[in-house]
Amino acid sequence: MDTKNLPVGVFDSGVGGLTVAKEIMKQLPKEKIIYFGDTARVPYGNKSRETVIAYSRQIVGFLLAKGVKAIVVACNTASAFALEAIAGDVPVPIIGVVKPGARTASKTTKNGRIGIIGTEGTINSGIYTEYLSELDPGISVFGKACPLFVPLAEEGWLDDPITVDVIRRYITPMLEKDIDTLVLGCTHYPLLAESIRKVAGDNVNLVNPALETALELARILREKDLLSDGSDVPHHRFYVSDGAEKFRSFANSILPCEIIETRDVNVKVFGQP
Amino acid sequence: MDTKNLPVGVFDSGVGGLTVAKEIMKQLPKEKIIYFGDTARVPYGNKSRETVIAYSRQIVGFLLAKGVKAIVVACNTASAFALEAIAGDVPVPIIGVVKPGARTASKTTKNGRIGIIGTEGTINSGIYTEYLSELDPGISVFGKACPLFVPLAEEGWLDDPITVDVIRRYITPMLEKDIDTLVLGCTHYPLLAESIRKVAGDNVNLVNPALETALELARILREKDLLSDGSDVPHHRFYVSDGAEKFRSFANSILPCEIIETRDVNVKVFGQP
Repeated sequence: MDTKNLPVGVFDSGVGGLTVAKEIMKQLPKEKIIYFGDTARVPYGNKSRETVIAYSRQIVGFLLAKGVKAIVVACNTASAFALEAIAGDVPVPIIGVVKPGARTASKTTKNGRIGIIGTEGTINSGIYTEYLSELDPGISVFGKACPLFVPLAEEGWLDDPITVDVIRRYITPMLEKDIDTLVLGCTHYPLLAESIRKVAGDNVNLVNPALETALELARILREKDLLSDGSDVPHHRFYVSDGAEKFRSFANSILPCEIIETRDVNVKVFGQP
Repeated sequence: MDTKNLPVGVFDSGVGGLTVAKEIMKQLPKEKIIYFGDTARVPYGNKSRETVIAYSRQIVGFLLAKGVKAIVVACNTASAFALEAIAGDVPVPIIGVVKPGARTASKTTKNGRIGIIGTEGTINSGIYTEYLSELDPGISVFGKACPLFVPLAEEGWLDDPITVDVIRRYITPMLEKDIDTLVLGCTHYPLLAESIRKVAGDNVNLVNPALETALELARILREKDLLSDGSDVPHHRFYVSDGAEKFRSFANSILPCEIIETRDVNVKVFGQP
């Protein structure tokens, strides 16, 4: 098969990366996606850098073995901890969600005051602050780890008074710092966007890195002449390390396509980190 | 070394099992404990039965290689899913927390109406209902999975209005069923006991399986003449699969002893399930 018609690999610690996969399907409707969700080891947000690197390396090996032409790390924590560490060993283009997210935020802000919410790992890594300072040293960044957002999203309490209370607890301090832009720095958080909007008000722009990530992928595929020519029907495939049925029902609720197959994958067979 | 002076192995998906280890140290002060917390793969509560069995088998292998004389599965989900599946292959006594918890609940209830709160895995397994029916077929059991309790406990929001609201959401239906006994069917939940008490009121007895588990361990060690003779200083050891320092600081906050050593253990080297 022509390299350009090979699939794009997308991975996440679990289901959250489907919000990125969805944006890629929208922006690049001719591309086939192979998605991997590490549902056996989710969440990544409170694990150490070394562990997240080891897991990411295993998953990249799995995707490469499936013959992908490019890889999207659709997980902020893995993008923050692992992308730089593993990119050098990967023979295809690989991009994360953090750089696109930072770029969008820097273009969006008017007053140069940006809030970042994400997992403990993403926030403590300081990576958004680092990228934003590179883009514009005048920008002030206010980060906050929100470890309850993922379980609230997975519980399905998306538009719920308790969720609103939790959001208020987490983001009030950055609202008091007069931010005008808030990056949803974890792929689960767009699911809570409506409730976050209630707390943040209409004067704060919510940035979802998924769109810019899909656009960056499009740019890179175009540059490298790797855009699918559409001669093949886009047939997406989804793999998880645990709970295929549970994943399937969640995925079907947020994706604009029928999921063809979901398979449990034993992560231990991926090879050593 | 005399078999009776070998350590007792205790394992959990993470830090929660320390509430059980603490009770064992209190009831059996002469025993040495080797604790394993699977912090790289926590939580177990939303994983499949097959995955929890595979992980438990790996950890039991690790503990046996350390020369333990008995094993306590200090995790409700692993007790629910894996204990029966692996007990036959384990050459030392092995006990879980579910049977002791069910026994205490059946002795505690006056009106035969018992609530069980736990992880999705524990509740969906139906194991508490099964054991309680065996103990007394007249008992009515009302179960509820509470997936937000572990993240709330780990966030440290133990006595907090948001936590009280979440507890109210989860347990009001069983309170309306007139339960007089509520089993804290996850080792993290005793950390939220004060807030649970506020919602449940003084007429509902909260059952923490940890005490009865420690007493069952004592009974079994006595029966098999395996109680330590105290000739050795109890020197506890703690192993985790990720984040040793984070574990240490949490453990030091709930255990009545100084933690001697914490080591990261690569779970992948435990051998195949």
